[in-house]
Amino acid sequence: MTAEAKPPPLARHMQNLGRRARAASIILARADCAAKNRALTAIAGRLESEREKILAANARDVAAARAGAVAAPLLERLQLSESRVAAMARGLRQVAELPDPLGDTGEWRDGPSGLRIGRRRVPLGVIGIIYESRPNVTADAAALCIKAGNAAILRGGSESLHSNLAIAHCIARGLAAAGLPADAAQVVNTAERGAVGALLAMEEFVDVLIPRGGKDLVARISGQSRIPVLKHLQGVCHVYVDAAADLAMAADVAFNAKTYRYGICGAMETLLVHRAVAAELLPALARRFVAHGVELRGCHATVAAVGGAAAVSPATEEDYLAEYLGPQLALRVVDDLAAAMAHIARYGSGHTDAIVTADEAAARRFTAEVDSSSVMVNAPTCFADGYEYGLGAELGISTNRLHARGPVGLEELTIRKFVVIGDGHLRGAG
Amino acid sequence: MTAEAKPPPLARHMQNLGRRARAASIILARADCAAKNRALTAIAGRLESEREKILAANARDVAAARAGAVAAPLLERLQLSESRVAAMARGLRQVAELPDPLGDTGEWRDGPSGLRIGRRRVPLGVIGIIYESRPNVTADAAALCIKAGNAAILRGGSESLHSNLAIAHCIARGLAAAGLPADAAQVVNTAERGAVGALLAMEEFVDVLIPRGGKDLVARISGQSRIPVLKHLQGVCHVYVDAAADLAMAADVAFNAKTYRYGICGAMETLLVHRAVAAELLPALARRFVAHGVELRGCHATVAAVGGAAAVSPATEEDYLAEYLGPQLALRVVDDLAAAMAHIARYGSGHTDAIVTADEAAARRFTAEVDSSSVMVNAPTCFADGYEYGLGAELGISTNRLHARGPVGLEELTIRKFVVIGDGHLRGAG
Repeated sequence: MTAEAKPPPLARHMQNLGRRARAASIILARADCAAKNRALTAIAGRLESEREKILAANARDVAAARAGAVAAPLLERLQLSESRVAAMARGLRQVAELPDPLGDTGEWRDGPSGLRIGRRRVPLGVIGIIYESRPNVTADAAALCIKAGNAAILRGGSESLHSNLAIAHCIARGLAAAGLPADAAQVVNTAERGAVGALLAMEEFVDVLIPRGGKDLVARISGQSRIPVLKHLQGVCHVYVDAAADLAMAADVAFNAKTYRYGICGAMETLLVHRAVAAELLPALARRFVAHGVELRGCHATVAAVGGAAAVSPATEEDYLAEYLGPQLALRVVDDLAAAMAHIARYGSGHTDAIVTADEAAARRFTAEVDSSSVMVNAPTCFADGYEYGLGAELGISTNRLHARGPVGLEELTIRKFVVIGDGHLRGAG
Repeated sequence: MTAEAKPPPLARHMQNLGRRARAASIILARADCAAKNRALTAIAGRLESEREKILAANARDVAAARAGAVAAPLLERLQLSESRVAAMARGLRQVAELPDPLGDTGEWRDGPSGLRIGRRRVPLGVIGIIYESRPNVTADAAALCIKAGNAAILRGGSESLHSNLAIAHCIARGLAAAGLPADAAQVVNTAERGAVGALLAMEEFVDVLIPRGGKDLVARISGQSRIPVLKHLQGVCHVYVDAAADLAMAADVAFNAKTYRYGICGAMETLLVHRAVAAELLPALARRFVAHGVELRGCHATVAAVGGAAAVSPATEEDYLAEYLGPQLALRVVDDLAAAMAHIARYGSGHTDAIVTADEAAARRFTAEVDSSSVMVNAPTCFADGYEYGLGAELGISTNRLHARGPVGLEELTIRKFVVIGDGHLRGAG
């Protein structure tokens, strides 16, 4: 026995997991694309052949969550079904079909001393993903990480542990079947609360953290860890209807932006309307929202423009700052494009904002000056999504100002290094 | 009088500085490239016309540093001269001539729902740069930040405060002459020690921190701040001479990599030599190093290969981990390419590593598998530099795994946002 303090068992367990991830990441970084695609396909097959086991594990999680009186939306997200397992397998096969994000060295140029300079995409290394209830994230996130050559450490909510472990078993078997290290995507196999804290402290073994969940989770992770975080902050998204908008299009875009799904980060939370078109646009649109069950909160001018057409309660400062993620909508009438952009700059979250206009100069100014990760013209904010952007899939939407801004696809899970080719060039010799 | 705690004066001062930087960054982000280039040219002119004032301010700093018995290399870096001021002005004009890193929206693609998706480069926002003695960094860093549309907060060493303020005066006048906000590049105008701590806490006003200096400075900044950091860690750089190397080229590349300048981060610190060529390469090369004043520390096989040709002391584990930045060199004889790469993976810092070989397969494997920000073939590591890579200039070399890996040029001071163009597309309507 020595007097030295030993790390507590949980921390040691997590360190071992990290060490294995690091070792796997080095092998995976050198694996060729065909092997990684074979692994993804094999995992998809495993998910299908072990569907009953996955559903049984999920049933345990769901029963425990019910007994714990978990809220209905969380239960809904937790619950798997035959079709959800099939969707996971389909997702894996889709990722297998995406182009290799690594590829050969490219972007060659000549340096002033005659060296040839290229850039080569390499994986980020080990990615720690911390998420809540949805077990499908386990398969989706592992697939993107593997395809980009990264090892993943996946920490889902403790309420979904059995589901995640059943999925992890399929992932490990699929990796092994393709001759790749099973440790390339590990699920943290403990519900102990301290596991997240231990993960956040593992700078030596984890290169990037990606939290997927509410803003409290994201704030905790980026506050506590020195590991770089690809953050997804709030989605306080706006649609601005310009004076030059096609008003029928504007009404449909605004309605879709709010009602496609209330709970997604790209859902519109505030509708801004140019003063010149408020009286024409708002009465019918407000009626349509209210008929759909959306509660409206507007400025004085909104209330006046809607008139008696629908109920609009007065909006407060809090309404303009709110990410409702539900059937509420803030409205504001603005004097012009500049006032709309000033509102977005003050109250928005830099996620996704849209303009509806037929005026090309207004569209150009909006897309140039609005400082959000996505800016849209004549399209609803609910389109903010890696798949809709042609990235194939996404691991979340980043509102960072470094590395990735917007949906995080395969390319964003890589980084370019420099490759320099000389022929015995010497510096200072010229 | 209220009972509320007021922030201390220094923190308040720094907050004001941050608030002004944020406001300036919004204007600068929208400024056209011609205005920014006019500002850079005007600053260059000011540096020339106010040269005597700058040199007088620098003389005050140098006198104080001498009185404080500052070390000679630091004094050398602190001291300005007519030619150094001229070089600063020339650097600004060169940055003015570089292409605009922002430009129009590009990389258009079609999403699966028929949306057009593009990417547009935007500035990062406000960049905090923390550096040591060299006053020329004030002009160089401000120029790159301004050109990329970012506001800069510059905090040099307290020993160079008068020099930096004299340069800052020129920057502010040049910005104003081009109709841009003078606050777009501010030097922290106090030598108070707490200023750096206050800057690190200003998440609201600073988007990215770039430390330029020793590893203690970098470690302190990334340890203390929640603001993302573009880190430059150590440069423990290797040259590996392969069995298939042209040995005359290998000797010249290795000699240049070490002796071009001892103090730069791209200087070779360890030379790895394939066993098959050690006896032919090492005696003459070791003699050349020792004649140049370089002290050698090698493994047993190195000592044996050098024979009596030159003095080689035994290398320890510490030698292989050392960033000497001076006239010392570690040497090791390795069995093959794999052993060389294993040494680099274990002891290297991921900065810059080179292979000398005529074997294309070996070169390809080295550039693919060595996980450093720059990998070189038949070129000395001392070429690791943004200018030599054709980036025009650099704000340091990042060993990050996120955002930028390698020299940080204008492009790395920007980020791409998504631009989405529809024609009234609705999600879920298809």
